[in-house]
Amino acid sequence: MLLKLPALDPATVQPRSTSGYPEPFRSRVLPREKRALADALGLTKIGINLTTLFPGKESSMRHHHTLEDEFVFVLDGEVVLRTDDGEQLLTAGTCAGFPAGSKNGHQVVNRTNRPARYLEISNSNPEDSAEYSDVDLAYSKAADGSAVYTRKNGTPISSS
Amino acid sequence: MLLKLPALDPATVQPRSTSGYPEPFRSRVLPREKRALADALGLTKIGINLTTLFPGKESSMRHHHTLEDEFVFVLDGEVVLRTDDGEQLLTAGTCAGFPAGSKNGHQVVNRTNRPARYLEISNSNPEDSAEYSDVDLAYSKAADGSAVYTRKNGTPISSS
Repeated sequence: MLLKLPALDPATVQPRSTSGYPEPFRSRVLPREKRALADALGLTKIGINLTTLFPGKESSMRHHHTLEDEFVFVLDGEVVLRTDDGEQLLTAGTCAGFPAGSKNGHQVVNRTNRPARYLEISNSNPEDSAEYSDVDLAYSKAADGSAVYTRKNGTPISSS
Repeated sequence: MLLKLPALDPATVQPRSTSGYPEPFRSRVLPREKRALADALGLTKIGINLTTLFPGKESSMRHHHTLEDEFVFVLDGEVVLRTDDGEQLLTAGTCAGFPAGSKNGHQVVNRTNRPARYLEISNSNPEDSAEYSDVDLAYSKAADGSAVYTRKNGTPISSS
């Protein structure tokens, strides 16, 4: 039975399988599928992705946000959470949360041989930015909300 | 293996099984268990409950929020979503979203004979309030963030 808004079957949402990252970071996260559920539901105050992370792939480079809380809830499969404190295994039904302004860089990595699926949710703040723990990369939002990636000193990265 | 922050196993979070609702509404939603995951994770910009709704129970009275987007994602079991447009069945893996300011009153009801489990997530706005579609009830937040329930004309409801 097809659901109608305000209900939604995520399977009916076309996934985005691109990344704004320049190389060499892009190849570390793709292939990956993100279904933008908040957009599909007309929500603007929170961001919600239903993400499928394929074997061997990283959710992002390890990073922390300045103004957005971030929440990850694992639905299927398992991922390894990497932070400044080391690694922990997140199995289906477990979660993690990263308060805005915390400097503990985080990412999840799929080290299994099957896809992992998780929800990633944050508040939406147009002034948000992110700092990266391990690589020379910086993130901010353009006036239209799109992602801008530069080196940490603000200079452009030429993407191959 | 016990997870440590920023990771969290929701099973280790003590559930809240009370409701701020006065009667006769309280008995329509309890028993119910809410695990406050955002609080446990130290997140303040989003609110996250992992809720177990027992057979025959309603998530809330049918309502809509003024300043908070609301998102529900069903993890186990199934619930009926009730809105101004009628009813839809939400099975595990489906979701619903209610933009702040939308006047479409909503609730979910467990009409099965087993518990249903879902995530309910919103941005956190201290000025938020809610209006109720079917009953003489109004919700706002006190200065300390706690819930205040009155009649629609602002007068107190004596709770039995």
